[in-house]
Amino acid sequence: DFLRALEEVHPLFGVSEEDLDRCVEGGIFHFSSHIERILKNGHDFIEQVRSGDTPLLSVLLHGPTGSGKTALAARIAMDSEFPFIRLVRPVDMVGMNEIQKIQHLQKAFTDAYKSPLNVLVLDNIELIVDWVPVGPRFSSAVLAAIKGLMTNKPPKGRPLLILATTSERTVMNQLQLVFKAQIAVPNVRTQQELAHIMQESGAFDQEGISRAIGDIENTLESREIGVGVAQVLLSIQTAMQDQDRAGRFAEVMCEAVANAQSV
Amino acid sequence: DFLRALEEVHPLFGVSEEDLDRCVEGGIFHFSSHIERILKNGHDFIEQVRSGDTPLLSVLLHGPTGSGKTALAARIAMDSEFPFIRLVRPVDMVGMNEIQKIQHLQKAFTDAYKSPLNVLVLDNIELIVDWVPVGPRFSSAVLAAIKGLMTNKPPKGRPLLILATTSERTVMNQLQLVFKAQIAVPNVRTQQELAHIMQESGAFDQEGISRAIGDIENTLESREIGVGVAQVLLSIQTAMQDQDRAGRFAEVMCEAVANAQSV
Amino acid sequence: DFLRALEEVHPLFGVSEEDLDRCVEGGIFHFSSHIERILKNGHDFIEQVRSGDTPLLSVLLHGPTGSGKTALAARIAMDSEFPFIRLVRPVDMVGMNEIQKIQHLQKAFTDAYKSPLNVLVLDNIELIVDWVPVGPRFSSAVLAAIKGLMTNKPPKGRPLLILATTSERTVMNQLQLVFKAQIAVPNVRTQQELAHIMQESGAFDQEGISRAIGDIENTLESREIGVGVAQVLLSIQTAMQDQDRAGRFAEVMCEAVANAQSV
Amino acid sequence: DFLRALEEVHPLFGVSEEDLDRCVEGGIFHFSSHIERILKNGHDFIEQVRSGDTPLLSVLLHGPTGSGKTALAARIAMDSEFPFIRLVRPVDMVGMNEIQKIQHLQKAFTDAYKSPLNVLVLDNIELIVDWVPVGPRFSSAVLAAIKGLMTNKPPKGRPLLILATTSERTVMNQLQLVFKAQIAVPNVRTQQELAHIMQESGAFDQEGISRAIGDIENTLESREIGVGVAQVLLSIQTAMQDQDRAGRFAEVMCEAVANAQSV
Amino acid sequence: DFLRALEEVHPLFGVSEEDLDRCVEGGIFHFSSHIERILKNGHDFIEQVRSGDTPLLSVLLHGPTGSGKTALAARIAMDSEFPFIRLVRPVDMVGMNEIQKIQHLQKAFTDAYKSPLNVLVLDNIELIVDWVPVGPRFSSAVLAAIKGLMTNKPPKGRPLLILATTSERTVMNQLQLVFKAQIAVPNVRTQQELAHIMQESGAFDQEGISRAIGDIENTLESREIGVGVAQVLLSIQTAMQDQDRAGRFAEVMCEAVANAQSV
Amino acid sequence: DFLRALEEVHPLFGVSEEDLDRCVEGGIFHFSSHIERILKNGHDFIEQVRSGDTPLLSVLLHGPTGSGKTALAARIAMDSEFPFIRLVRPVDMVGMNEIQKIQHLQKAFTDAYKSPLNVLVLDNIELIVDWVPVGPRFSSAVLAAIKGLMTNKPPKGRPLLILATTSERTVMNQLQLVFKAQIAVPNVRTQQELAHIMQESGAFDQEGISRAIGDIENTLESREIGVGVAQVLLSIQTAMQDQDRAGRFAEVMCEAVANAQSV
Ligand SMILES: Nc1ncnc2c1ncn2[C@@H]1O[C@H](COP(=O)(O)OP(=O)(O)OP(=O)(O)O)[C@@H](O)[C@H]1O
Ligand SMILES: Nc1ncnc2c1ncn2[C@@H]1O[C@H](COP(=O)(O)OP(=O)(O)OP(=O)(O)O)[C@@H](O)[C@H]1O
Ligand SMILES: Nc1ncnc2c1ncn2[C@@H]1O[C@H](COP(=O)(O)OP(=O)(O)OP(=O)(O)O)[C@@H](O)[C@H]1O
Ligand SMILES: Nc1ncnc2c1ncn2[C@@H]1O[C@H](COP(=O)(O)OP(=O)(O)OP(=O)(O)O)[C@@H](O)[C@H]1O
Ligand SMILES: Nc1ncnc2c1ncn2[C@@H]1O[C@H](COP(=O)(O)OP(=O)(O)OP(=O)(O)O)[C@@H](O)[C@H]1O
Ligand SMILES: Nc1ncnc2c1ncn2[C@@H]1O[C@H](COP(=O)(O)OP(=O)(O)OP(=O)(O)O)[C@@H](O)[C@H]1O
Ligand SMILES: [Mg+2]
Ligand SMILES: [Mg+2]
Ligand SMILES: [Mg+2]
Ligand SMILES: [Mg+2]
Ligand SMILES: [Mg+2]
Ligand SMILES: [Mg+2]
Repeated sequence: DFLRALEEVHPLFGVSEEDLDRCVEGGIFHFSSHIERILKNGHDFIEQVRSGDTPLLSVLLHGPTGSGKTALAARIAMDSEFPFIRLVRPVDMVGMNEIQKIQHLQKAFTDAYKSPLNVLVLDNIELIVDWVPVGPRFSSAVLAAIKGLMTNKPPKGRPLLILATTSERTVMNQLQLVFKAQIAVPNVRTQQELAHIMQESGAFDQEGISRAIGDIENTLESREIGVGVAQVLLSIQTAMQDQDRAGRFAEVMCEAVANAQSV
Repeated sequence: DFLRALEEVHPLFGVSEEDLDRCVEGGIFHFSSHIERILKNGHDFIEQVRSGDTPLLSVLLHGPTGSGKTALAARIAMDSEFPFIRLVRPVDMVGMNEIQKIQHLQKAFTDAYKSPLNVLVLDNIELIVDWVPVGPRFSSAVLAAIKGLMTNKPPKGRPLLILATTSERTVMNQLQLVFKAQIAVPNVRTQQELAHIMQESGAFDQEGISRAIGDIENTLESREIGVGVAQVLLSIQTAMQDQDRAGRFAEVMCEAVANAQSV
Repeated sequence: DFLRALEEVHPLFGVSEEDLDRCVEGGIFHFSSHIERILKNGHDFIEQVRSGDTPLLSVLLHGPTGSGKTALAARIAMDSEFPFIRLVRPVDMVGMNEIQKIQHLQKAFTDAYKSPLNVLVLDNIELIVDWVPVGPRFSSAVLAAIKGLMTNKPPKGRPLLILATTSERTVMNQLQLVFKAQIAVPNVRTQQELAHIMQESGAFDQEGISRAIGDIENTLESREIGVGVAQVLLSIQTAMQDQDRAGRFAEVMCEAVANAQSV
Repeated sequence: DFLRALEEVHPLFGVSEEDLDRCVEGGIFHFSSHIERILKNGHDFIEQVRSGDTPLLSVLLHGPTGSGKTALAARIAMDSEFPFIRLVRPVDMVGMNEIQKIQHLQKAFTDAYKSPLNVLVLDNIELIVDWVPVGPRFSSAVLAAIKGLMTNKPPKGRPLLILATTSERTVMNQLQLVFKAQIAVPNVRTQQELAHIMQESGAFDQEGISRAIGDIENTLESREIGVGVAQVLLSIQTAMQDQDRAGRFAEVMCEAVANAQSV
Repeated sequence: DFLRALEEVHPLFGVSEEDLDRCVEGGIFHFSSHIERILKNGHDFIEQVRSGDTPLLSVLLHGPTGSGKTALAARIAMDSEFPFIRLVRPVDMVGMNEIQKIQHLQKAFTDAYKSPLNVLVLDNIELIVDWVPVGPRFSSAVLAAIKGLMTNKPPKGRPLLILATTSERTVMNQLQLVFKAQIAVPNVRTQQELAHIMQESGAFDQEGISRAIGDIENTLESREIGVGVAQVLLSIQTAMQDQDRAGRFAEVMCEAVANAQSV
Repeated sequence: DFLRALEEVHPLFGVSEEDLDRCVEGGIFHFSSHIERILKNGHDFIEQVRSGDTPLLSVLLHGPTGSGKTALAARIAMDSEFPFIRLVRPVDMVGMNEIQKIQHLQKAFTDAYKSPLNVLVLDNIELIVDWVPVGPRFSSAVLAAIKGLMTNKPPKGRPLLILATTSERTVMNQLQLVFKAQIAVPNVRTQQELAHIMQESGAFDQEGISRAIGDIENTLESREIGVGVAQVLLSIQTAMQDQDRAGRFAEVMCEAVANAQSV
């Protein structure tokens, strides 16, 4: 029966809780209404798969570096409480040759084919296919494998949701890696959003927040931020080594903005 | 004698019913007169091969992503009731190297050479040759094998119909992969066609259909649809998770149209 | 003595009659004076080699797809009645790696070096070197082998005629694959030529011929045909599945003309 | 406990003192306020990692050839007195194939995962990935490995600071090799800075310094220097073989400036 | 002593008389003063090497296809009567991989290092390095080997003359394959030269010669010939199969001229 | 002690006197003041390394083909009388694969690390990395090895001078193969320089020298020579086979000048 199957499956190839947990170690700050919308959309896709009408659904979370794609995909996956959740990351395949990578991917999918409800998170999918813009280069064998696996209908009664993340959405189009649905994950864009994060971090008082945001506006001569939430959180940590937290935070953020624009 | 040979052949390498069935799981909706014409043409090619005059005939079904090429090719093949029908898909060759892929293809053809009437469906033939537009890249060894096999006359009395599908017709020309005949499979293009599908799906009442189509026209500021039937059916499934089916369907369809145009 | 040598040679590596026969299965229709001229030239080259003055002669038959190159080369080779005739086709080398292909070619040549009079037919030589215009790609090792073998004088008293076919004559120039003589094989070009073939096929009466040709002229708005004889013969077979043979033939021919022009 | 773990770790894969020492054999001359700032920033990153808030931090030291990147990275690393410090240099991987290089890198990281506080210096990271601008060429496998390893969170309680050096900062962007922070290391730019180094070297008296700098300005018709500190120190050594140290130094420096500009 | 050394060497790796003979099977027709000059220059290089002053001399014979490069190089080599003469041809290396080709070349050179006077003929050196203009492609390993071997001074008292032939002189420059001296081998250019060859062939009487040359001039509307001597001799053989030798010769020559110009 | 170490080292991997000797077989003609300057600079670099201040110094001798780079590098190396001198030439690596080449280079360097004073001559370094301008192509693995080895500080007390030669200085920049110092080796440029060499060769009397130089000026309509000393010496040898030495010398030199300019 369902419960027994679930139990059997779990210990063998179930959720690697720890890995997923670490993806959201920094928490999810609700600094913008986009965050709500993303989690809601993700939840709906989970329900569509759970309903059994759609045996196979692939969704792409795309956005700039550090915008929170991995954390959000992990959150959505964990909130599903599906019996099979697996995270596939480029680092897990370091040192593998093309054949070994393909076998690693095949195993992730065939494991999923054994459980009654499944989520696969393919993190940084452009790196899974070894994409480098210089050349450009990529592994066409791994790409072909992913295309095949991502369009292969699972056995009856084994619906599968694929959540992929990428900071290279146009590359997906160029490589003709097609997803059934897409979710955009934006940067921290406005001063209000930035203030929200600073507040929630607990590292600044109100005055510090105002001063830092003022400094940033003065230095950049713009109200636009345009930096990923991950970089904001790191900047807070760097600033905390300094006496003048707010001042140092403004400095580090300005460098981060400049860097993000120069890339 | 004929019947015995047929029987012998069947169990060994005959129709993989299940795989073919799954290709038309969503059914064939007759939303446009094109569908009729395509099935009729397919039937005629079947008869030409059955007649024995033409020992080898290759036909290309081409059209946009999700327009229904695979479902139609599977339908035509199954309707022939030929003793040997085989489906060759890219996913079956995931993880194979070039030599193994070529052997897989060779086996499909030489199996066909043993039965009195044969259909081979080569699904997504551009992916069978590992085509990627970036580069572009492809497997010239597999391509050469397909060229050789597709022009090789079967033994006397073993006529063979090859049905290939592709969403990359111009790539076929560039690769000089030549077919004796071609069948175009179009997108869902008009509001009438879309309404037909919504109706046939049983998910909407008349009012919902009108409202959704009105919404789509308003959002896109166009009466053109231009989305594959597969995407339409998926959009219906997504919409069914929502209270406001018609409204949600219009939303999802608009995203699908936008996506289809951006690619 | 000569006759004994011939006998010895024959069973080991002599004419593969069946393969050659199948190349002219559709017969040779004398629909134009070019056909006569081509066969005459071929015959003269046979005689030049038979005379012993020219120990090595390479001739290229070039022309559009389906224009009849292979059938004519096979006809010329078989009419020579030389003790050693061999056909080398791309499909015979499917699945071979470069080294195996080269050995296959070497064997064909060294076999020829043992018989007193020899013809080698290298069919679709651009595919033997794995030419693909995308890239372009080709096997430089196989190309180098062919260059070496095609210019290597046979042992004394073992004259050799090489008949190569290609639909890619300019590629031969680009690859610096040099032939001592060349024969052009044209398409079916005029209405008269087309009528001749329809007549000889026995599938149409005079009225049907006139009507079909009239239909074609009306549809294409041109008197030019420009399709290979092979495609014409296939179109006749397709038309024969239909009640209205002449009408259907006109339709299929128009598609064929359009296809030929779009490539 | 902490100290014991430290002791255990040290002998196995601890600081290779000698290698690091040799990187700063020429000492660190404080010829400009930039040097102070660089060492201060480096120290702050060390503290951020030591604090435990930031389990993984990657910093890029970038600047022209011979500007002192390696010496400064080694200085920062040694000043941390972390129990695990390792230097990874291109020369250590000469003769390794891609797999061996990746294993070498993996070992450096997994060794780091065992010690409570860690610094890895990746020297000339563009050469570690075998970057050559002609082509351009690089090892995408090694690059992928570095990307994976550099973003892989160490086990809890094993924070890691990665200090990478490069003279090809824009290449890092092109290869999408992303660092959390960056430190610029400039050339010797002004006459004052050059005078400072000449003075500190002890090889010139005041008159010699003035004369040499005058000569250089006259020859180059500019007050700009624009040469790395390493080249300045080498030029002093070359000049010391000559009777007229100051004169010879000016000559060699002018060649160095010309060379640096021509590249 | 000299004679004994010569005897010892000869049987092991001496002149392959037969191969060289076959290169001049068609004889050397003195149809132009260039032929004299080429043979004289070749003779002088032989003497320079024989004198012992120049231990290593590399000479390139370059000219259009069929202009007689190989025949002339073979003639010069055979006329030297050096104890070691070796012909290295692309066909001898068909089916070898790069390493085997390099070993084949190394053996030719090291064999030469054992004999007191040596000539190596490297025929069609652009094909020895597998040059194909499409790409372009070539074997850089074989090229490197030839560069090394061609500039390597033989042991004292083992002078070596290298005669290389090519129809791709500019390719030699592009590949930086450097020769110490060069000899140009021209086509048959004028009507007088052509008449000379027709005469010497013994296949035409005076009237036939005049008529053929007149025909050619009329057809081509030019007095320029521009075809290699090899093609002229082959055209004579083709013409000899015909009743009207002169007329047929003119025809075949005109095709040859057209072909030569189209390449 | 020093002397014993020297003795031990010498027999194992010391100076290969013969190879170095052969590089200067033609002697060093002091036809221009540049020659003096080059030898002086080379001597100074030797002293700088001998002094022990500079443990590692890499110097590039660059100039046109045949300008005398190898002879001068060999001269400088031999004049040092260092206990370890080694010549690394492309021809020594013919037939080696990349790994073997890298091991060959590594051995040269590690051998040097054992002796108290060392010179390595890397002859034609662009060919050691298999550079070919067509493509361009080169061995990035060998290049990476050389970069690593050339910047690797030898063990204390084992100073090393690297003398590299190349006719492709700009290629060194493109490949980012960096040298600490550079020496330009020019062609024979003026009539005076040419006359000096003719004189010193002992092959011409004063009248012959004047006549030849006059002839050259008349033919080329220029006083510029622009040919390497190696080609001049070879031209003298060719001329010596002729009765009219001066006249023939002028002829051959003119061809050499033309060739040098056409490349
Ligand atoms: N609203 C949020 N959305 C996502 N992440 C958030 C949010 N608030 C805080 N975080 C934290 O920010 C970090 C986001 O980093 P994450 O690695 O998910 O970004 P990413 O877009 O996947 O980056 P990359 O492009 O490098 O893969 C995580 O530590 C997460 O816990
Ligand atoms: N008239 C129709 N023609 C084709 N398919 C239809 C039709 N009506 C409904 N369908 C359903 O639509 C889906 C078409 O998807 P299918 O995979 O065949 O498209 P495709 O063109 O092969 O897509 P892809 O480009 O991804 O290969 C199938 O589920 C099929 O059952
Ligand atoms: N006059 C003719 N010349 C050549 N073939 C003819 C002629 N008349 C009828 N045929 C038939 O037409 C067909 C020609 O096809 P064939 O394969 O020889 O063409 P092809 O030019 O070699 O094609 P491809 O370019 O595909 O290699 C054969 O079946 C042959 O029997
Ligand atoms: N202020 C300084 N900063 C850095 N190095 C200094 C300084 N003062 C003196 N030095 C010495 O200068 C040399 C700098 O060379 P180093 O190899 O570190 O430069 P680099 O930028 O790493 O060069 P490369 O681009 O070749 O890797 C060292 O020998 C160092 O001891
Ligand atoms: N004056 C001549 N010079 C050279 N060859 C001549 C001459 N007269 C007659 N011949 C004959 O012409 C033929 C020249 O062919 P050969 O193969 O030497 O030309 P090639 O330039 O080497 O051709 P390819 O470019 O194909 O290598 C030979 O058969 C030779 O005997
Ligand atoms: N002043 C000189 N400098 C160098 N070589 C000289 C000089 N005078 C005479 N020679 C002789 O000239 C020849 C120079 O040839 P060398 O091979 O050294 O030139 P190269 O520049 O190394 O040539 P390549 O570019 O082919 O490597 C040698 O034989 C050498 O003995
Ligand atoms: Mg991520
Ligand atoms: Mg499909
Ligand atoms: Mg053919
Ligand atoms: Mg450095
Ligand atoms: Mg030749
Ligand atoms: Mg040299």
